[in-house]
Amino acid sequence: MHILKGEQLEKIAFHLFLAAGAPEEHSLIVAQHLADNNLTGHDSHGFIRVLQYIRQIKEGLIIPAAKPVIVSESPGAAQVDGHYGFGQVAAKFSTEVAIDKAKKQGVSCVTVRHLGHLGRLGAYAEMATRAGCAAILFCSTGGYVPYQVPFGGSQRKLGTNPMAMGFPSEEEGPIVSDFATSVAAEGKIRVYRARGHKLPEGWILSKEGRPSNDPNDLYAGGSLLPVGGSVGHKGFCLAFMTDLFGAIMSRDGFPGSPGKQFSNGSLIVAIDIERFAPLAAAKSEVSKMVDYVKDTPPAEGFEYVMYPGEKEAKNRKERGKNGVEIEDETWNQVMALVQEYGVADKLGKLP
Amino acid sequence: MHILKGEQLEKIAFHLFLAAGAPEEHSLIVAQHLADNNLTGHDSHGFIRVLQYIRQIKEGLIIPAAKPVIVSESPGAAQVDGHYGFGQVAAKFSTEVAIDKAKKQGVSCVTVRHLGHLGRLGAYAEMATRAGCAAILFCSTGGYVPYQVPFGGSQRKLGTNPMAMGFPSEEEGPIVSDFATSVAAEGKIRVYRARGHKLPEGWILSKEGRPSNDPNDLYAGGSLLPVGGSVGHKGFCLAFMTDLFGAIMSRDGFPGSPGKQFSNGSLIVAIDIERFAPLAAAKSEVSKMVDYVKDTPPAEGFEYVMYPGEKEAKNRKERGKNGVEIEDETWNQVMALVQEYGVADKLGKLP
Repeated sequence: MHILKGEQLEKIAFHLFLAAGAPEEHSLIVAQHLADNNLTGHDSHGFIRVLQYIRQIKEGLIIPAAKPVIVSESPGAAQVDGHYGFGQVAAKFSTEVAIDKAKKQGVSCVTVRHLGHLGRLGAYAEMATRAGCAAILFCSTGGYVPYQVPFGGSQRKLGTNPMAMGFPSEEEGPIVSDFATSVAAEGKIRVYRARGHKLPEGWILSKEGRPSNDPNDLYAGGSLLPVGGSVGHKGFCLAFMTDLFGAIMSRDGFPGSPGKQFSNGSLIVAIDIERFAPLAAAKSEVSKMVDYVKDTPPAEGFEYVMYPGEKEAKNRKERGKNGVEIEDETWNQVMALVQEYGVADKLGKLP
Repeated sequence: MHILKGEQLEKIAFHLFLAAGAPEEHSLIVAQHLADNNLTGHDSHGFIRVLQYIRQIKEGLIIPAAKPVIVSESPGAAQVDGHYGFGQVAAKFSTEVAIDKAKKQGVSCVTVRHLGHLGRLGAYAEMATRAGCAAILFCSTGGYVPYQVPFGGSQRKLGTNPMAMGFPSEEEGPIVSDFATSVAAEGKIRVYRARGHKLPEGWILSKEGRPSNDPNDLYAGGSLLPVGGSVGHKGFCLAFMTDLFGAIMSRDGFPGSPGKQFSNGSLIVAIDIERFAPLAAAKSEVSKMVDYVKDTPPAEGFEYVMYPGEKEAKNRKERGKNGVEIEDETWNQVMALVQEYGVADKLGKLP
């Protein structure tokens, strides 16, 4: 186990992307995004992705210098094409366009297609909240990696299709809701498998469509169930709508008609709070709601009720101070890349 | 049991609202909405509500002649005040404003406050789809009827806070997702109680915060759990965001700071599909996704996979042909109102 500061993770990732052919600006965007994901506690979307992105650059699946371009535009709406560059670069650009348009029009809707893995969807909701906007985001997978089974079905068909929402607040972090519309993201099942643990009831089906507690069954052709258990039509509805909004509206590939490769086709709605309420008043009302909700006696097994985004804010504080743990396997693979690209001298002293 | 055609239900409701002091236009909007809810299979939001709305008119909680008014406006955004009139009148008006603005700007966001129970939220998503728009809606309860417990908590604090989404399609009905962010709407528990049935696992907590299967426990101070079971933070996030979007953005009452009375404060985002794709192409892609998803072998206990909105489309066809069943209790109470208001001669022959 290695413990690193956020800035150290960012620096390593930055120099590796640069050495792999990415322009400085893009390398910085992706490196900052990954390090911040580790700081917020989302290690599955953090430093470990350096390995994946560098591999995808080598395979031609990420074109590191590709710039996102607005391909159609009206006062409140825009369509962006990421030209198969880094997902983070295209998603950040699209969110900036959405914020700018929302500030001018009150509300905006921006779609983005043909982009790599965009990372943690909630990060773009947070961006909008920092600009005084509320945001709603849907993120598809271009018709690839269909891990999720439709409600009432027995075979996987849809992506884990996350959706995210953000709202500005006075709290330590903004209010951010960000989750896979399947019971769990695929990465969580991977962790259960790595640790040899059984899965909770109601998370996956085996290849034969039967309930299973064995994480290996997912990788043997099984499927993740939609959020909701006995009311799993609710999670399925969210997953299905996420493909309509994220993939069909962006003109990206979608389940049943996949694009040429994986793509995180997405849609962002940004709403300028000031058109509806003085921002300070809205923020203070959010705090009132947070206090009201947190003032609930906890259920058995819980310490207290958390507002959406509280865990990320707490993690950022704690990990900002104490650093981020990187497991040996990831560390050794990244260090092999550091050797390969000969960037060790740029990184200073490492743990 | 009485079997009635949709038009008959509409006619009865229309004349009762008219007799109770509602203008013709408002009476028609509400009567049509209720009858259509019965036709789509949502009896809990249908004809039975005539009783509630007439009672609320008598109590001064619904001002039947109140007209919704735009109180602030920018190119893509508007705020509507319903002045405590019928929720359906204010919500229909707000959706029309949202559609009109989306057609001009590409996207719009309209909020509405101070309105009665707006009925079935999905109906407004459907309205938008008929105009070639996609829609996202959030509906709060003004800080009243807090049946839902926050994830990790043991006491009810939030409304059942539905959210809805719609997308145009070639299918028999549009694609509509519409559900309470709690495991079930309160009305469903009422049905279990009426029939003396036990609830499924994971639906409610008792007043003491313990899991319960007894529907009576909800009405003895218990609470509805958020959607998600072991991942109930997902349902809770949706419920929490629904209050921020539906109540705080609309300047209505919200949990922790309730308004003067129950109000279905809501927010509507409408997106003009044509700004993003030719409408016919988008619809045909939706059909492709529907076919792809329906072509999934069913799980045990299921006949086939249904797309969001399929049940409503099927019900409309079946009930449009065979009529709607109204249970004796509701029928007798409505007939008492028909007597009270002396409108029997306007209704023709009834079953």
